[in-house]
Amino acid sequence: DFEAALEEVKPAFGAQRETLESYCTGGMISSGPVFDHLLSTCHRLVNQVRSSENTPLLTCLLEGPAGSGKTALAAQLGILSEYPFVKVASAENMVGYSEHSKCLEITKIFADAHKSSLSLVILDDVERLLEYVAIGPRFSNLVLQTLLVLLKKRPPEGRKLLVCATSSSGDVLDTMGLSDVFNVVLNVPPLTLTEEIETVIQSLDVFSRADIPKAVELLGAGAMPIKRLLMLVEMARQTGDSGATRISLRDWQGVLEDLGTLP
Amino acid sequence: DFEAALEEVKPAFGAQRETLESYCTGGMISSGPVFDHLLSTCHRLVNQVRSSENTPLLTCLLEGPAGSGKTALAAQLGILSEYPFVKVASAENMVGYSEHSKCLEITKIFADAHKSSLSLVILDDVERLLEYVAIGPRFSNLVLQTLLVLLKKRPPEGRKLLVCATSSSGDVLDTMGLSDVFNVVLNVPPLTLTEEIETVIQSLDVFSRADIPKAVELLGAGAMPIKRLLMLVEMARQTGDSGATRISLRDWQGVLEDLGTLP
Amino acid sequence: DFEAALEEVKPAFGAQRETLESYCTGGMISSGPVFDHLLSTCHRLVNQVRSSENTPLLTCLLEGPAGSGKTALAAQLGILSEYPFVKVASAENMVGYSEHSKCLEITKIFADAHKSSLSLVILDDVERLLEYVAIGPRFSNLVLQTLLVLLKKRPPEGRKLLVCATSSSGDVLDTMGLSDVFNVVLNVPPLTLTEEIETVIQSLDVFSRADIPKAVELLGAGAMPIKRLLMLVEMARQTGDSGATRISLRDWQGVLEDLGTLP
Amino acid sequence: DFEAALEEVKPAFGAQRETLESYCTGGMISSGPVFDHLLSTCHRLVNQVRSSENTPLLTCLLEGPAGSGKTALAAQLGILSEYPFVKVASAENMVGYSEHSKCLEITKIFADAHKSSLSLVILDDVERLLEYVAIGPRFSNLVLQTLLVLLKKRPPEGRKLLVCATSSSGDVLDTMGLSDVFNVVLNVPPLTLTEEIETVIQSLDVFSRADIPKAVELLGAGAMPIKRLLMLVEMARQTGDSGATRISLRDWQGVLEDLGTLP
Amino acid sequence: DFEAALEEVKPAFGAQRETLESYCTGGMISSGPVFDHLLSTCHRLVNQVRSSENTPLLTCLLEGPAGSGKTALAAQLGILSEYPFVKVASAENMVGYSEHSKCLEITKIFADAHKSSLSLVILDDVERLLEYVAIGPRFSNLVLQTLLVLLKKRPPEGRKLLVCATSSSGDVLDTMGLSDVFNVVLNVPPLTLTEEIETVIQSLDVFSRADIPKAVELLGAGAMPIKRLLMLVEMARQTGDSGATRISLRDWQGVLEDLGTLP
Amino acid sequence: DFEAALEEVKPAFGAQRETLESYCTGGMISSGPVFDHLLSTCHRLVNQVRSSENTPLLTCLLEGPAGSGKTALAAQLGILSEYPFVKVASAENMVGYSEHSKCLEITKIFADAHKSSLSLVILDDVERLLEYVAIGPRFSNLVLQTLLVLLKKRPPEGRKLLVCATSSSGDVLDTMGLSDVFNVVLNVPPLTLTEEIETVIQSLDVFSRADIPKAVELLGAGAMPIKRLLMLVEMARQTGDSGATRISLRDWQGVLEDLGTLP
Ligand SMILES: Nc1ncnc2c1ncn2[C@@H]1O[C@H](COP(=O)(O)OP(=O)(O)OP(=O)(O)O)[C@@H](O)[C@H]1O
Ligand SMILES: Nc1ncnc2c1ncn2[C@@H]1O[C@H](COP(=O)(O)OP(=O)(O)OP(=O)(O)O)[C@@H](O)[C@H]1O
Ligand SMILES: Nc1ncnc2c1ncn2[C@@H]1O[C@H](COP(=O)(O)OP(=O)(O)OP(=O)(O)O)[C@@H](O)[C@H]1O
Ligand SMILES: Nc1ncnc2c1ncn2[C@@H]1O[C@H](COP(=O)(O)OP(=O)(O)OP(=O)(O)O)[C@@H](O)[C@H]1O
Ligand SMILES: Nc1ncnc2c1ncn2[C@@H]1O[C@H](COP(=O)(O)OP(=O)(O)OP(=O)(O)O)[C@@H](O)[C@H]1O
Ligand SMILES: Nc1ncnc2c1ncn2[C@@H]1O[C@H](COP(=O)(O)OP(=O)(O)OP(=O)(O)O)[C@@H](O)[C@H]1O
Ligand SMILES: [Mg+2]
Ligand SMILES: [Mg+2]
Ligand SMILES: [Mg+2]
Ligand SMILES: [Mg+2]
Ligand SMILES: [Mg+2]
Ligand SMILES: [Mg+2]
Repeated sequence: DFEAALEEVKPAFGAQRETLESYCTGGMISSGPVFDHLLSTCHRLVNQVRSSENTPLLTCLLEGPAGSGKTALAAQLGILSEYPFVKVASAENMVGYSEHSKCLEITKIFADAHKSSLSLVILDDVERLLEYVAIGPRFSNLVLQTLLVLLKKRPPEGRKLLVCATSSSGDVLDTMGLSDVFNVVLNVPPLTLTEEIETVIQSLDVFSRADIPKAVELLGAGAMPIKRLLMLVEMARQTGDSGATRISLRDWQGVLEDLGTLP
Repeated sequence: DFEAALEEVKPAFGAQRETLESYCTGGMISSGPVFDHLLSTCHRLVNQVRSSENTPLLTCLLEGPAGSGKTALAAQLGILSEYPFVKVASAENMVGYSEHSKCLEITKIFADAHKSSLSLVILDDVERLLEYVAIGPRFSNLVLQTLLVLLKKRPPEGRKLLVCATSSSGDVLDTMGLSDVFNVVLNVPPLTLTEEIETVIQSLDVFSRADIPKAVELLGAGAMPIKRLLMLVEMARQTGDSGATRISLRDWQGVLEDLGTLP
Repeated sequence: DFEAALEEVKPAFGAQRETLESYCTGGMISSGPVFDHLLSTCHRLVNQVRSSENTPLLTCLLEGPAGSGKTALAAQLGILSEYPFVKVASAENMVGYSEHSKCLEITKIFADAHKSSLSLVILDDVERLLEYVAIGPRFSNLVLQTLLVLLKKRPPEGRKLLVCATSSSGDVLDTMGLSDVFNVVLNVPPLTLTEEIETVIQSLDVFSRADIPKAVELLGAGAMPIKRLLMLVEMARQTGDSGATRISLRDWQGVLEDLGTLP
Repeated sequence: DFEAALEEVKPAFGAQRETLESYCTGGMISSGPVFDHLLSTCHRLVNQVRSSENTPLLTCLLEGPAGSGKTALAAQLGILSEYPFVKVASAENMVGYSEHSKCLEITKIFADAHKSSLSLVILDDVERLLEYVAIGPRFSNLVLQTLLVLLKKRPPEGRKLLVCATSSSGDVLDTMGLSDVFNVVLNVPPLTLTEEIETVIQSLDVFSRADIPKAVELLGAGAMPIKRLLMLVEMARQTGDSGATRISLRDWQGVLEDLGTLP
Repeated sequence: DFEAALEEVKPAFGAQRETLESYCTGGMISSGPVFDHLLSTCHRLVNQVRSSENTPLLTCLLEGPAGSGKTALAAQLGILSEYPFVKVASAENMVGYSEHSKCLEITKIFADAHKSSLSLVILDDVERLLEYVAIGPRFSNLVLQTLLVLLKKRPPEGRKLLVCATSSSGDVLDTMGLSDVFNVVLNVPPLTLTEEIETVIQSLDVFSRADIPKAVELLGAGAMPIKRLLMLVEMARQTGDSGATRISLRDWQGVLEDLGTLP
Repeated sequence: DFEAALEEVKPAFGAQRETLESYCTGGMISSGPVFDHLLSTCHRLVNQVRSSENTPLLTCLLEGPAGSGKTALAAQLGILSEYPFVKVASAENMVGYSEHSKCLEITKIFADAHKSSLSLVILDDVERLLEYVAIGPRFSNLVLQTLLVLLKKRPPEGRKLLVCATSSSGDVLDTMGLSDVFNVVLNVPPLTLTEEIETVIQSLDVFSRADIPKAVELLGAGAMPIKRLLMLVEMARQTGDSGATRISLRDWQGVLEDLGTLP
């Protein structure tokens, strides 16, 4: 019955692999110990669900500011887990759905997961699934209640489920009582240390080695989400001569000024 | 007519027994006098409904923080009561239901109970049945009003009913006037005393006797819900070599650090 | 036409008598002068509607804390009035009704009453009919407006109507402007004086005469709704040996401790 | 076409006369100059609409506390006006109507009035038509907007309309901007002066002449709505021997004590 | 195509002329320089739309307190403009309409205007179209958004449109962002100067010349909407002998006293 | 497939070109360095999307006060980009649409864009698409959530998309979390410097050279949206003799006085 399950869900996973890879194109860069620790804790959860008989259900929330790399991390986890059933529940696939249809879809994903011996469900951008907006605040209580129940519902005897959710509104999920139902809550921070930023920039190999310290300095102190850093680099790359392989510090400064990022 | 009722509801109970047992797998561990006292008060209620002619209806609320063992306690009560009719009303079985359907389902459960000579209805996670969320706050007034009425409605002449509800939002139920309609409100606390935690850890038999005091100390002072304690222990067990029978203090500390539980 | 009315409504009353009696099983105990005065004022209203030509409509609100005996008092009034038409409007009979259906039902009851020469309508637990909850606060304005109009609408020429409502949220009805439309508002207090509690306990005849003062003392000072007192007594009775006729002070103290009633 | 209109609406008026009379059974008692002045201002409005060509539409609001006699005054006006078309719009005739149906009904009444050469529309208890409740506050904006428009809409060339509304929530109508659209706002006060109360009591002829000052004194200082005064008197009348023609001061005092009116 | 348009819309205008005239029966009285200036600015807008090619759309808001003459002014503008297409959008013609139907109607009026070469649309009493009420506050966001868009939408190439709106809640329209979309906002004040009031009273020719200063003085200082002034005068006229051609100061004072206008 | 796409969307673009041009009739005037810088940053984005393989999706928000020229700038960008697919999503084309239909329409526009190799979507007046109003505040959360998701959704492999949105409520979009999802946020300011105003007036060539400084001075200090400046100039042009080619300072002052713009 284990093999049957493997067979049965493989195609589904096939389709999901592409989706997962599109969330972390270009591969993952390690920015330092914080990132490494995060990744290893995630692996621990993947392994525990696979091997322990006492925790048929583990739920984990990745929360951090916009663009810090949460979705990429969850997708990476999905690829590396090699679970027979991996499925992403994302608002991107539910544009225009009514609250009710969203709930049906999410319930369906969990029901499918409950049918597989070993499953991973990724709830990407939970606040989007919840249709959350700070004004009011407003959100879909229907979706929230569905999540609150599904995240506590044990899979049937003999099935195991890992749930990994991402959110950039950790405090909101707190107030909603949603953080409480997760077994584990992990913070995914933006790049904050000069060394972290430098490590990422080095990996990208777009500045001449000598320019890197100055390039980092121009970004000023303060948190920098990896998403924004990648965009700034790309913009500067397009500014230079199409033949040039490296970004000049002048182009770099130009981009930072235009986009008001310069301190 | 008593026997008829017994026969008639037995199958229903049969189905429920499995459900009840799934809520307290692994058996109940006594953490000390507070737990024992709680259990005995519950028994007193079960007995009173069975024997007294003057209290055809008794309603009891078990309230306490997340993971303190409320559902397990209520399920245990259901198993031990040996009432001919025992039924759990839980949001888990009503995912995606409209408010109206929830009310119908709950009303049906009470109507069935009113048909049996001796019944126990467990309302698990009342705030989930109510679709409660602190933001707003929002909840289903339809479900609330249904509960407010059903919890006061006497069963027909000659029938007896015990209702046992669980909730981790006691103060919210207060404000809703829901606590008021219960005859008895019992607090189910998390583990708070060092002795309580030690007793539970001892029962689990996962540390070498000598390590227990240090293991408990690492948890720091402060309340610890039994649910969380069981998860931490399981996680640490998976960390060690698969051959090892005991958790080393190092693995224990590692888990506590990873999950940010270390003081 | 008077006799015709009598005949026509008798069956309805027959059905209602059982309902009324179920609200005051065990008979009414007088706890002292406050209770006696309340009962006599109620009788005065019953008589005035029967005999005066100038007050075809009288409306009376019994308000007091939970369990103080309001419903029992109203039911008692219904039995003693011997009006040809007596009808209870209660949320218990409207579980799952929509706001609209509730209004229809209530309107129907008043329309029926307007057809009888002499009628009593009991609106039990008005805040439940209103689906009131303090959070928000929320309630059915549809039901409220229906009550506000029906409570002021004179019966047709030659018909007489007494309306008796009960509520444990007097202040809320005030804010809603509902108290204002009642001709008479009577407070039904909990037992507050030591003598009142003693009188009730004596009537129940469950303690040995010598133990009564001590038993009352154990309840501490402060208001005690009669409903709660009766439950505590019953619980203590079940604790003792099944052969025992009296409650021992030890069992009494045990019950009070268990339920956290002990001061 | 004037005569045609007269004929056409007479039956409608016939039906309304009974309704109007039921609102002021027992005739109107003048309590003193304030009352007289109020009545004469009302007459002035009735006459102006009848005779002036320049004011085809006049709207008047009678506002005052509960039971001060507003509806009786408006009904009296309707009877004395002798307009060919008089119609009462009251929530009493719309119990259970949806907001929309209420608007339709009100719009119909104004449309009918616009068809008659000379009309009086009485809007009784405007806050009931508006389904107003102080909690929230809530009300039907649909009905409000309908009134706001209809109260400013001129009848067609050659038709004349007087609108007389009653309300016990003058300040609420202010906030809603509803008072603003009335041409005239008149206050209908409760009885406040000792002389006013005395005059009314004298008219009722239920105390012996010598007892009147004492009877009035027992009522204490402060405003007394005429509705309440009439009820107290009736209650006291029922208390005495059925043969007695006068109320004794003792019975009077008894009633006041029972109903908590005694200072 | 210009002539075709003229022909096509003329009948529509015919029907509207009566409506427009009914809003300013009795002709317009100039109360002084403020009024004259207002009228001439309005004319300037009418002419600019007719002659300039660069402003195919001009929108103007007349705002001022209740009864200051806004609707009369807009109607006057409509008559004097002699545009081939003039249309009034008013809540009076939409009593009982749903929000949606109101939007349809308004959109239809603008669509029709966009078909004519030169059009004037009058939005009378914008806050009534918006179903605005200060409690809440509540209003139809559907209508508001429709107006916000239509008031900025350029007519098709070669067509010209002037929009003139009236409102007595200028500050509310501000908060709604509705004032912002008008090109021009003009204040229509009540009569405030003694001279203005005197000028209007003189024009009415209802007091003997000698009485006018005293009559004005009796009105006290403070703003007086022209609507109220006209009503007071008419009321006083009806008070005197039907033969009398002038209002006596005594009758004048009587009316002011009755309606509580006397300082 | 690239050419196919080009062909396929060209007609759509043809229809859009007219729309785009109607938003910037009369051509764009450069008011100075701020404007030039803004325009060049926009061009940089257009080029980056065209040439870089790493940024298949770029989103840009133009925010600034009413009438500062945001829509004109976005339209200009659309014309100059020469992308094969350009489409404007504007509330103007959705008057009377339900929230749901608006979402469908917007989703359709993005879906079409995702089918073209290189697309520009202009979201004009985002707060109108959102049906935003400051009172409440209220807005369509359905539309908001749709935008929040679509603005982050990567086009399919090999397609590229630039989104350019305009809004005059930048701070509101902030609170909604909508600004956060844009890669770039650019401020479009009103004219603030005397030189900027002077430059624009000079370009219009409506004052005699000598009058310009005085004309600018009359406008006073403070921000002046270009939209308002153009309207004032046009109004003054219409005031003068139809033969005159220049605006006299007297006419200029007259217009400023009438519209209350004079300091
Ligand atoms: N460690 C990493 N190494 C390289 N690229 C990364 C890494 N983390 C994230 N990225 C890239 O950064 C971009 C943004 O990351 P991602 O979408 O995961 O962030 P996020 O936190 O989910 O953002 P949001 O809050 O907007 O949902 C993606 O293109 C992703 O591929
Ligand atoms: N006394 C006990 N001995 C052993 N295991 C227990 C005990 N109490 C609870 N558990 C176990 O702890 C876990 C959590 O308990 P349970 O679900 O009853 O807590 P809860 O208070 O209902 O939590 P929640 O607030 O999340 O509903 C369950 O797996 C249950 O089997
Ligand atoms: N005077 C009395 N003598 C004996 N029993 C009484 C008396 N009053 C009330 N009871 C009993 O007490 C119990 C509670 O009374 P009841 O339901 O009338 O209280 P209540 O005020 O309506 O409560 P609630 O606020 O919950 O509606 C009932 O079982 C009733 O029979
Ligand atoms: N001047 C009066 N003389 C005699 N009876 C009166 C007089 N005014 C009112 N009443 C009587 O008093 C009672 C209450 O009056 P009414 O209903 O008009 O008051 P109301 O102000 O409309 O009350 P509510 O605020 O409840 O609507 C009626 O029975 C009416 O007949
Ligand atoms: N200048 C004027 N000369 C003569 N009559 C006028 C003048 N202005 C207004 N009126 C008259 O005054 C009355 C009220 O004017 P109008 O309805 O235009 O005021 P409004 O400001 O629109 O009032 P509201 O705020 O109630 O809509 C109308 O009968 C109108 O004919
Ligand atoms: N740089 C410019 N040169 C010439 N005309 C301009 C310029 N910018 C804007 N305009 C003109 O000014 C008018 C208003 O500009 P536009 O509608 O773009 O402003 P907006 O900021 O979008 O206004 P809103 O906030 O009302 O949407 C238009 O007629 C436009 O053609
Ligand atoms: Mg993400
Ligand atoms: Mg539980
Ligand atoms: Mg009761
Ligand atoms: Mg009334
Ligand atoms: Mg007007
Ligand atoms: Mg714009």
